[in-house]
Amino acid sequence: MAYDDQNIFARILRNELPAIKVYEDDQVLAFMDIMPQAEGHTLVIPKTPAVTLLDLPPEAAAYTIQIVQKIAKAIETALNAKGIVLMQLSGAAAGQTVPHVHFHLIPSSVHELGRHAVQMGDQEKIKALAEKIKALL
Amino acid sequence: MAYDDQNIFARILRNELPAIKVYEDDQVLAFMDIMPQAEGHTLVIPKTPAVTLLDLPPEAAAYTIQIVQKIAKAIETALNAKGIVLMQLSGAAAGQTVPHVHFHLIPSSVHELGRHAVQMGDQEKIKALAEKIKALL
Repeated sequence: MAYDDQNIFARILRNELPAIKVYEDDQVLAFMDIMPQAEGHTLVIPKTPAVTLLDLPPEAAAYTIQIVQKIAKAIETALNAKGIVLMQLSGAAAGQTVPHVHFHLIPSSVHELGRHAVQMGDQEKIKALAEKIKALL
Repeated sequence: MAYDDQNIFARILRNELPAIKVYEDDQVLAFMDIMPQAEGHTLVIPKTPAVTLLDLPPEAAAYTIQIVQKIAKAIETALNAKGIVLMQLSGAAAGQTVPHVHFHLIPSSVHELGRHAVQMGDQEKIKALAEKIKALL
């Protein structure tokens, strides 16, 4: 699928749009989901332009999943989370809303997730959670 | 978390229990979920004993996600899937039912998933789907 470099995550990567970042290196960015399905909902994205996990170069996937692990551990500690849902949706038909590959980390139960991306969260609360997570990275 | 080597995936890895396999190498096994949340629901597991993604050695995660990508592509083609949900549940509190880290690949929408692991699928149908996926790997 053709990559649209005007998608909101591409714009966040270029600092054209703001994000509540918890981690960044030369290959990966992690930031808070502003419409969280649970408190602490974080997104991890490779900087490589790719629409879905199926399009992502394997080496980028390999690197990104290791950062996903690190962020998951920080979320677990910061929020004293007992369980973490990792979700990655490939294709609008799967429920993907932003056409840049992203991994959701949601400290919740798969049975209790709110509907994906429908409601804005309390941004101040999200910023405070981000600080707790960031402090562990 | 301590690893229980009597969990069903450990037993499948030791060939003590059957599974409808689609892919196997020295580090990873992929097989059909026998209680699928959608047709083509496949599980990908590292052979490394680890309960959750957080426990898994980073190099095993890096390798496994690349196989997840391969299997996802095969599922996409075999089932003409428009979307694929990747899900990985860490911790019983997240909904994890088998204490060996596993990645779900579900050709469906996140909004249409059945409740996790509650109903046996038609095993003959699952075997036929497995053959289609396997043929592409």
